[in-house]
Amino acid sequence: MSKFWSSMAKRAEPYVPGEQIEQADLVKLNTNENPYPPSPKVLKAIEEELAGSLHLYPSPTADKLRSTIGSYYNMTADEVFVGNGSDEVLAFSFMAFFEPGKVIRFPYVTYSFYPVYAKLFDIPYEEVNLEEDFSIQAEDYFDSEGGIIIPNPNAPTSLYVGLDHIEEIVKNNPNQVVIIDEAYVDFAEQSAASLIRKYDNLLVVQTTSKSRALAGLRVGFALGNASLIDALIRMKDSFNSYTVDRLALVGAQASFEDEAYFKEITARIVSTRETVSKKMKQLEFTVLPSKANFVFVSHPRVAAEVLYTELKKENIVVRFFDKEPINNFLRITIGTDTQMEELLLTLEKILAK
Amino acid sequence: MSKFWSSMAKRAEPYVPGEQIEQADLVKLNTNENPYPPSPKVLKAIEEELAGSLHLYPSPTADKLRSTIGSYYNMTADEVFVGNGSDEVLAFSFMAFFEPGKVIRFPYVTYSFYPVYAKLFDIPYEEVNLEEDFSIQAEDYFDSEGGIIIPNPNAPTSLYVGLDHIEEIVKNNPNQVVIIDEAYVDFAEQSAASLIRKYDNLLVVQTTSKSRALAGLRVGFALGNASLIDALIRMKDSFNSYTVDRLALVGAQASFEDEAYFKEITARIVSTRETVSKKMKQLEFTVLPSKANFVFVSHPRVAAEVLYTELKKENIVVRFFDKEPINNFLRITIGTDTQMEELLLTLEKILAK
Repeated sequence: MSKFWSSMAKRAEPYVPGEQIEQADLVKLNTNENPYPPSPKVLKAIEEELAGSLHLYPSPTADKLRSTIGSYYNMTADEVFVGNGSDEVLAFSFMAFFEPGKVIRFPYVTYSFYPVYAKLFDIPYEEVNLEEDFSIQAEDYFDSEGGIIIPNPNAPTSLYVGLDHIEEIVKNNPNQVVIIDEAYVDFAEQSAASLIRKYDNLLVVQTTSKSRALAGLRVGFALGNASLIDALIRMKDSFNSYTVDRLALVGAQASFEDEAYFKEITARIVSTRETVSKKMKQLEFTVLPSKANFVFVSHPRVAAEVLYTELKKENIVVRFFDKEPINNFLRITIGTDTQMEELLLTLEKILAK
Repeated sequence: MSKFWSSMAKRAEPYVPGEQIEQADLVKLNTNENPYPPSPKVLKAIEEELAGSLHLYPSPTADKLRSTIGSYYNMTADEVFVGNGSDEVLAFSFMAFFEPGKVIRFPYVTYSFYPVYAKLFDIPYEEVNLEEDFSIQAEDYFDSEGGIIIPNPNAPTSLYVGLDHIEEIVKNNPNQVVIIDEAYVDFAEQSAASLIRKYDNLLVVQTTSKSRALAGLRVGFALGNASLIDALIRMKDSFNSYTVDRLALVGAQASFEDEAYFKEITARIVSTRETVSKKMKQLEFTVLPSKANFVFVSHPRVAAEVLYTELKKENIVVRFFDKEPINNFLRITIGTDTQMEELLLTLEKILAK
């Protein structure tokens, strides 16, 4: 700390992302990336843009991409916001919709960036404990003072809440914004996007990092009533006019235009997830019924931390959270079938010791 | 405005960037972009990265790029911060070093994003009028309550303040951070980076958008004492862990590695600027002695707004600011020699009317 730091810099408690180890032979199952490359059409679109005008600023309004994403959800461009990854979109959302002095509510446990944003912007928050089975009870989120943020599926638990419950939460907070963070929704069932035209207080946040295999490109987006989107645009234009670069704009665009590829890799990951879940249960693991591109698992005999350490020795990295009540669980990203077979074999060896 | 907007969303007064018109035959001289493409090595590096791991997150710490930029300035990686364009770096700087309730100081006129940041983060500010000749007087910036931000060269005036004056300002604010925004410094003389080891309260912000022809890629950076850089990292990690994407990281890296190309295009722009300045004076323009990649000009007979409108009719876009005391000036980006010849011919025609 230094005498030059502002009170904001002093009170910040930064998020710690999963380890980003660049190592060729690593089986990297710790940050929920897609194991498949993005659509070949994405790469082609970026190559074409490269030949063009990299010396010129990108579109500050990202109209074309917003319109494409809008069409995908039967919405218009003014109901879509795009940003530099969904983390940036979430940051702008905390700024635009949550108020210092008014308590917001989110689950415990959940995505650990939420308390980080809240502390940064001085927004008080209440963490609502999950049920014993890690599920979310809709009633716990009714009548909040300052707003709600919930990921669906939740991370790191992998559990999905049905849209009827989400709708109850939205309906029971008519004067606050309810943010549904759908980073993993493409591996689940329905998006809450279908409720937006019905509720003016619902914001749905998504990302191209997981299901569209574009973590390296940084494009996230929000869907909501045009007046909510307008507030996000005001935050962006008060912070950084050009948040999404030229290559990211065309890459994300191409990804939405190649629905066949998107559906294929998503289905493949879901299928691998189901197989892995079954096989892990055969190894006596408790496996939560995942609707995400990861599984959340615990073993009755061997502590999660031991498994984490032993796997790492074998060049397999998964995510371990050293906090109650999940410190006997591992979050394991669904990789390719080959990667998952290696994981299962290694786990079998470790458990046999 | 909507009942769902936070007080921050309500008080924001967003920045309005220059028009980004995508039109093939346009002579675009309004947002100070480089008229030349980036180094071929930049394009090659991005192509190589494309073939790699776009589905994986980029490095959240950007160590390699920070180290390369550091070496360029005889500094270490921990004295360098990188972000998604220098606007993002400036936003994090306002968050990290300026305090609500403590008055900061910057010139009037200057980059019009500064008051936008200040309003967003509730930081009071004092705008110090420029001298009659638009120059900056160092003494006006001594003993500030909350900190100082000054662009050098200043925009839109194009004027450069000598390092001795900058040092006086830094020295006379020993308990506040002084930010020198050097977006255009590569077209001027020395960077204040040389003073960083001497003063722990100096932050220098630069960009790859102008001199390195990478406006479309979004990479800016800050240089300063490791403790200041640490505060910026804390802001980033409380906001968005991965702000610079994989393609931008390698592109910016390659740009710093091709110094010959950088020097060549920079020298070419400076040479064009000198020629254009001379020729505009022959057309009776007042041309401020520019050290940037643009000129700031005024004509004794024809109003700036008229010139702006007439040029636009001829598909030449420049920047006109409709505010005192610069509403009889135009800011004109230095383009290629061919573009500038077209500008000069068109101006001659307009003036002859």
